[in-house]
Amino acid sequence: MLVPDEVRSSIDQDLGFGGRVARESRKRLLNRDGSFNVERRGQPFLRSLNLYHLVLTVSWPRFYLFFAGLYFLVNLGFASAYFLCGPGALEGSAARMPVERFEEAFFFSVQTLATIGYGRLGPHGHAANVLVTVEALVGLGGFALVTSLLFARFSRPEARVLFSAQAVVAPYADRTGLMFRIANARRSQLLEVTATVSLSRLETVNGQRVRRFYELPLERKRVVFFPLHWVVVHPIDERSPLWQVDEAGFRSSDAEVLVYLTAFDETFSQTVHARGSYKFDEVVFGARFADMFDARDDGVLTIDLRRLDRIERG
Amino acid sequence: MLVPDEVRSSIDQDLGFGGRVARESRKRLLNRDGSFNVERRGQPFLRSLNLYHLVLTVSWPRFYLFFAGLYFLVNLGFASAYFLCGPGALEGSAARMPVERFEEAFFFSVQTLATIGYGRLGPHGHAANVLVTVEALVGLGGFALVTSLLFARFSRPEARVLFSAQAVVAPYADRTGLMFRIANARRSQLLEVTATVSLSRLETVNGQRVRRFYELPLERKRVVFFPLHWVVVHPIDERSPLWQVDEAGFRSSDAEVLVYLTAFDETFSQTVHARGSYKFDEVVFGARFADMFDARDDGVLTIDLRRLDRIERG
Amino acid sequence: MLVPDEVRSSIDQDLGFGGRVARESRKRLLNRDGSFNVERRGQPFLRSLNLYHLVLTVSWPRFYLFFAGLYFLVNLGFASAYFLCGPGALEGSAARMPVERFEEAFFFSVQTLATIGYGRLGPHGHAANVLVTVEALVGLGGFALVTSLLFARFSRPEARVLFSAQAVVAPYADRTGLMFRIANARRSQLLEVTATVSLSRLETVNGQRVRRFYELPLERKRVVFFPLHWVVVHPIDERSPLWQVDEAGFRSSDAEVLVYLTAFDETFSQTVHARGSYKFDEVVFGARFADMFDARDDGVLTIDLRRLDRIERG
Amino acid sequence: MLVPDEVRSSIDQDLGFGGRVARESRKRLLNRDGSFNVERRGQPFLRSLNLYHLVLTVSWPRFYLFFAGLYFLVNLGFASAYFLCGPGALEGSAARMPVERFEEAFFFSVQTLATIGYGRLGPHGHAANVLVTVEALVGLGGFALVTSLLFARFSRPEARVLFSAQAVVAPYADRTGLMFRIANARRSQLLEVTATVSLSRLETVNGQRVRRFYELPLERKRVVFFPLHWVVVHPIDERSPLWQVDEAGFRSSDAEVLVYLTAFDETFSQTVHARGSYKFDEVVFGARFADMFDARDDGVLTIDLRRLDRIERG
Repeated sequence: MLVPDEVRSSIDQDLGFGGRVARESRKRLLNRDGSFNVERRGQPFLRSLNLYHLVLTVSWPRFYLFFAGLYFLVNLGFASAYFLCGPGALEGSAARMPVERFEEAFFFSVQTLATIGYGRLGPHGHAANVLVTVEALVGLGGFALVTSLLFARFSRPEARVLFSAQAVVAPYADRTGLMFRIANARRSQLLEVTATVSLSRLETVNGQRVRRFYELPLERKRVVFFPLHWVVVHPIDERSPLWQVDEAGFRSSDAEVLVYLTAFDETFSQTVHARGSYKFDEVVFGARFADMFDARDDGVLTIDLRRLDRIERG
Repeated sequence: MLVPDEVRSSIDQDLGFGGRVARESRKRLLNRDGSFNVERRGQPFLRSLNLYHLVLTVSWPRFYLFFAGLYFLVNLGFASAYFLCGPGALEGSAARMPVERFEEAFFFSVQTLATIGYGRLGPHGHAANVLVTVEALVGLGGFALVTSLLFARFSRPEARVLFSAQAVVAPYADRTGLMFRIANARRSQLLEVTATVSLSRLETVNGQRVRRFYELPLERKRVVFFPLHWVVVHPIDERSPLWQVDEAGFRSSDAEVLVYLTAFDETFSQTVHARGSYKFDEVVFGARFADMFDARDDGVLTIDLRRLDRIERG
Repeated sequence: MLVPDEVRSSIDQDLGFGGRVARESRKRLLNRDGSFNVERRGQPFLRSLNLYHLVLTVSWPRFYLFFAGLYFLVNLGFASAYFLCGPGALEGSAARMPVERFEEAFFFSVQTLATIGYGRLGPHGHAANVLVTVEALVGLGGFALVTSLLFARFSRPEARVLFSAQAVVAPYADRTGLMFRIANARRSQLLEVTATVSLSRLETVNGQRVRRFYELPLERKRVVFFPLHWVVVHPIDERSPLWQVDEAGFRSSDAEVLVYLTAFDETFSQTVHARGSYKFDEVVFGARFADMFDARDDGVLTIDLRRLDRIERG
Repeated sequence: MLVPDEVRSSIDQDLGFGGRVARESRKRLLNRDGSFNVERRGQPFLRSLNLYHLVLTVSWPRFYLFFAGLYFLVNLGFASAYFLCGPGALEGSAARMPVERFEEAFFFSVQTLATIGYGRLGPHGHAANVLVTVEALVGLGGFALVTSLLFARFSRPEARVLFSAQAVVAPYADRTGLMFRIANARRSQLLEVTATVSLSRLETVNGQRVRRFYELPLERKRVVFFPLHWVVVHPIDERSPLWQVDEAGFRSSDAEVLVYLTAFDETFSQTVHARGSYKFDEVVFGARFADMFDARDDGVLTIDLRRLDRIERG
């Protein structure tokens, strides 16, 4: 065995952050929203791709604003071109002043790009007709593009899993357990939800402070149905790396609990992933989660998602 | 071991309903259509998402009605705006009375939103032209939206698995078995169909009535092909939780048989899921399923799906 | 054990055709194109679904013809409606004779449905304008539908795996093997191709002829890459159900070799499935497959797919 | 055992290239871009499919050029048809010379295909009206087609994994290892990245030079997260086929290291695949990879992808 067992166990469980991160990182590895707290530089040739990624991931208002702006700019461009073709380029025109002519050219461009074509104004002469030919192609192509992108946004399944704001170390069975709560924020059902929970912390090995990773065994790794919420529990027994660790020890080791979920989204019929993280100051020792259930007369089980974060200090 | 074996087996098999449900639920957990009999409250910030989920899951007539109504309302809105621009806003207009003018504005809006643009009516003046610019954008964007949503509906694979109305406890091999029948209601083939069947029932533990879950072993968990129907069989032998349970015992324990299916849908090339449930009063003891096969002269095997539910009492 | 071992092995390997099929079928179970040789009746409530399934699976010429026909019919319908509105409904009309008026109404409908709207003809009066409003909605909705269906057709991955017309029983290592050849007919790469091969044949059990199923172990079940062709080999050794079976025995047992393939399609990034079958008269004993490779000066390996079926009798 | 163990191990690991390739190939099996270095002939009936595959895989500029060209050609075709209908076919025409008439017909075709329909020109007579009916259908259908294809391009997940230009044989733990570096070129996260690395080389068996395949065990086969880069390491210990192989031996055996990756693309929620290859002259003995990390004041881990290929000779 080339790699000592001790090292290997850490290699196998660093989740892909790599040895250098394991040794040097002093920041949290995963942000609260599940994004990675790292930066990659030097992808100049990918600038074009970023546009696509942006279009897929920006918020809806920005998405609409972007395309409304584009629509305005393209019309402005073609308006300028029609304007430059001279006064005779738009048949039916009544405008005399340059400002009026430009406005007319702009509205004519709108009617062309959107393929309305009232015909009160019409292209006259070679240049204007060629412009119309190009603008029609741009209009149709652009519209096809927007339709595609809209659908690309719609068809992108994305789990929206709510994590309780804090994890707790609370009594579990006859000892204690590290627990956090998750719930599905969407209406679509998640099925076969699987959780992988890792602990990342600094340890002193041969006098050096190094970051080590441990996978934390769970009471259960997987639920088939997820209609309500799920309290994910790591039982702290003798084999747990958290055995006999108190709040001070947890803090001084710069501990972070990394959570990785996979599930099957029923609406999209696709596998989705979610990540979360609890830094040491987001773990409360000696507290427990408050009840989320509501009583209902007809006996249907009801939970109130607003109480997901609620904990009770012991 | 922190959790007693006995408890653990129940934890591992409660399918994700959680301990509270396991203890308190007196209702069926899964409705006949596979939906969960629970309620989640407190998602105020998700109202916007519901719209999308609705659009995807409403029936086709409602989907069309919704967009036809939207089309009407948007035209009504723009008609009002054109109307408010005053009598001169629509060139070519012959209308004199307000009612006529509004009607004209409405039909002009239709011609603009749908990008027809006959041009018998045309926008005149600043305000009307700006409105046309906006309406064209709304029209194109809305149309792109509908196309996307239509496709989102089409591309959503959804298994439609028919469950026999009742399960039976019938002779199987030299003892008995719990059986139900399923068939594929769609023309597309389902492949690699896998069934997981669980029993949920009340038991008395230390004097308390608690709900327990058991996975029921099946004669076969998986079929590669599913061209006809499949009789799913749980053999009731000494290791079955249903061993020596009669109809009265089944009823008094508030038993429910939960079914979870996964399969590969060939038309969509995606994995699909289906759920079903048999409450105690949907399980018939001492009956067996009637034959579904039809004779045909040319020897091709033929089943009649209308007989899926038919049982014969012994 | 409730089910005798002997029976169970057959249950586990009947692939989902079920016991009744296993006993009674005298026809091939899978057609050469991989479709199932069975019929399902009694789905009256599903007629509407068939339309969608049809639209997805018909050939391209029929698909286009269908929508061209629909386009024609819808225009015919609206033309009739405009015609019925009377002679004054279309402003700009020069037609006098009913036939001319109907033609004009038809072409006006085309200009409206396709949202061209030249405006040489325009709607006049209430009825015609309402018709235009409806036709524009139908036109936009229908067009959105066609776009969605076109994409649904494009996005449907479908493996097109070529099976050699015949399987052979040929020398393999120091004994013999049952072999057939497959190749990918598409340009897109298939990865992680997995084959499952079963034998279905009649056997005499307690004096009764029953159909039994066996999975045939393969020299290799899976290839990671599939750039050329793959000779799937079942080595006929002492443990094979084909051990010491000759051509006459193969025929008299009404044998059928069922093939089930799964693979990952790189172009679509989805898993695809394919099925095939060799009935006893499609298996040639004592022949072997001819070489498919072509020599090329530059040393690049080249195969000729036209030789996939070629066998050489020993 | 029919196949000698020695042969079987090679059969199981030739990845699907087959025995003939294994024996005769003197070229690299995988090109640097992951495509296969083989050729398939004899698919005459598939020519039509190639069009679709092309449309999906050509570069964006060619994609746009192709459809712009098609737009031009279709308009040219319809322009000719309108022209052939004679001088009276286009109402509103002022053109007298044939060249002018053809130009007018071309721009009228543009206005019709794009469904603009200004109406300054309008179809007159039977022939022209029928042409408009057909052109509108072609225009709508073609536009639906482009929208579908655009989306088919967008929805096609494709991993863009950067491989370091060279692999190295460098000190690892207390011996050496074969290493190469990979990074994700896209902004979207790859999860659960799994690597399979094989060695293909010529060996002398019974006096014959044959190509053999070995899977190379890795320090770790899989990372859950892949936010930075990953150094894939095959430890060269006693069980490695590279044990005590030096640069000369590596070269004379015509060695090739084949890499196969699978991962889950978070943006597309689909599994993606990537392939790579290092021929003997792309493996540097006695060098090691240079550091890719950048220092940052705020402690966020930063890598510079431009240094992916950088190696330091020992």
